[in-house]
Amino acid sequence: MLPPAVVAIIREMEAERIRGASWLAKKGAEAYIALSESMSGRELIGAIKELGERIRAVNSTMASLYNLTRYVPVTADPSTLRARAEEFIKLCDEAKREIGNIGSELIDENEVVITHSFSSTVLEILKTARDKGKEFRVVITESSPDCEGLALAGELDRLGVHFDIITDAQLGLFAGKATLALVGADNVTRDGYVFNKAGTYLLSLACHDGGVPFYVAAESFKLHPELTAEEVDIVERPYAKRGYKIRNFLFDVTPWRYIRGVITELGILVPPKDL
Amino acid sequence: MLPPAVVAIIREMEAERIRGASWLAKKGAEAYIALSESMSGRELIGAIKELGERIRAVNSTMASLYNLTRYVPVTADPSTLRARAEEFIKLCDEAKREIGNIGSELIDENEVVITHSFSSTVLEILKTARDKGKEFRVVITESSPDCEGLALAGELDRLGVHFDIITDAQLGLFAGKATLALVGADNVTRDGYVFNKAGTYLLSLACHDGGVPFYVAAESFKLHPELTAEEVDIVERPYAKRGYKIRNFLFDVTPWRYIRGVITELGILVPPKDL
Repeated sequence: MLPPAVVAIIREMEAERIRGASWLAKKGAEAYIALSESMSGRELIGAIKELGERIRAVNSTMASLYNLTRYVPVTADPSTLRARAEEFIKLCDEAKREIGNIGSELIDENEVVITHSFSSTVLEILKTARDKGKEFRVVITESSPDCEGLALAGELDRLGVHFDIITDAQLGLFAGKATLALVGADNVTRDGYVFNKAGTYLLSLACHDGGVPFYVAAESFKLHPELTAEEVDIVERPYAKRGYKIRNFLFDVTPWRYIRGVITELGILVPPKDL
Repeated sequence: MLPPAVVAIIREMEAERIRGASWLAKKGAEAYIALSESMSGRELIGAIKELGERIRAVNSTMASLYNLTRYVPVTADPSTLRARAEEFIKLCDEAKREIGNIGSELIDENEVVITHSFSSTVLEILKTARDKGKEFRVVITESSPDCEGLALAGELDRLGVHFDIITDAQLGLFAGKATLALVGADNVTRDGYVFNKAGTYLLSLACHDGGVPFYVAAESFKLHPELTAEEVDIVERPYAKRGYKIRNFLFDVTPWRYIRGVITELGILVPPKDL
């Protein structure tokens, strides 16, 4: 039995509808910290295993959750558990900052950056570029039905970055006018497929067709060491309008061949030559 | 000065937000018929010229309106005008039926047809295939922000055709599972670009990537004899959400090279070899 404080965090993760893989992984680490505050010894060992299963079950094919549960040791010592979970959170934050540094170098003066949905990692890149004094425009999508794009609009407003919001269906029309595409990732599989908000694949195709470089920003803990694209379950959420059920798979799948590079905190990964 | 009944029709055309090139052209023909009922002689000649300008101005680069105004003669004789406008409407209806016949032959048993937005010409094809007793499924898009897809859902419901509705951003995810793509067209330019609801180009790219044949259904009066893709103005309509202005260009541009064929009443046009 997990303590109520830990279960509350799991429930929050399960109920989350907007934020993605980075947020979930950090929240999972907080669950381990909460666990370290109420147990020790053999009881703790059992609870760590149970919590690992619960965290992975939030999304059974999400790399960040899988990697978190592998990063955290099964230990009888609460202070070891706590230290390791805190280290995970620190590494997450550092990874994001470093991706901001690396990615912002791709943004030149007067760049027109197109993105899809809301990635906190892409936002970090834009923030860093802005901090470096660069002037650029961003094209962002409404991102129906949850409108994550409007949340990104609020952030860009605060940063003083100019942007246009478009409907998702206009991605093709605007990709050709952009000079750089930056998207986040929920999951990168072992065989090099990027799972990200549905529409990302369409943007990658339009960028490929228009000769616009397309980059994915993803902390290395989003790379899944085991799973291939075929094995990933794509979450579907209920959505309806005027009495009609509307299919609502959250993610689509972008193959390596349309990706110029994956920006990680370790550097920019480029696709293998044989693609 | 055009008579009030004619002006009322023009205003209706200008205000129309959902229906496309076929509807507008037929409505324009009705305006000529209304004109034929209230004028003759020199007065009629002037009014026909004025009405032609007003009709073209509803959308200055739309082939169907341009072709209508070229089809209708500048005449002093109201009965000639009326006969010719009625003939245009009859040809429109015949063209749609013939496209239904030709296009329905592309639909095999258990086909999965993907489409985007609402094309009355595509609907005619689906209707005809259904009348021929074929069983197939259709994937249709919500088509934000005006939700034309939900209007199509209502039509398919009435026909007893099974369908899934998806968000526009899932076009890439579902294109690969389809076996045939059928879309309408608002305009086909002299140099072979198809203007249709924004998102059509994305669907064409995903079909190309997934090896799914992509067809456009368009009456021949949607082929513009003069304009090239560069010269076409894409209409933008106001759209806002949570206080943010959202860009809302109605159409995007699909090049010939992603199109297997354009289904017209004269037969299926295939792209020239040198593309």
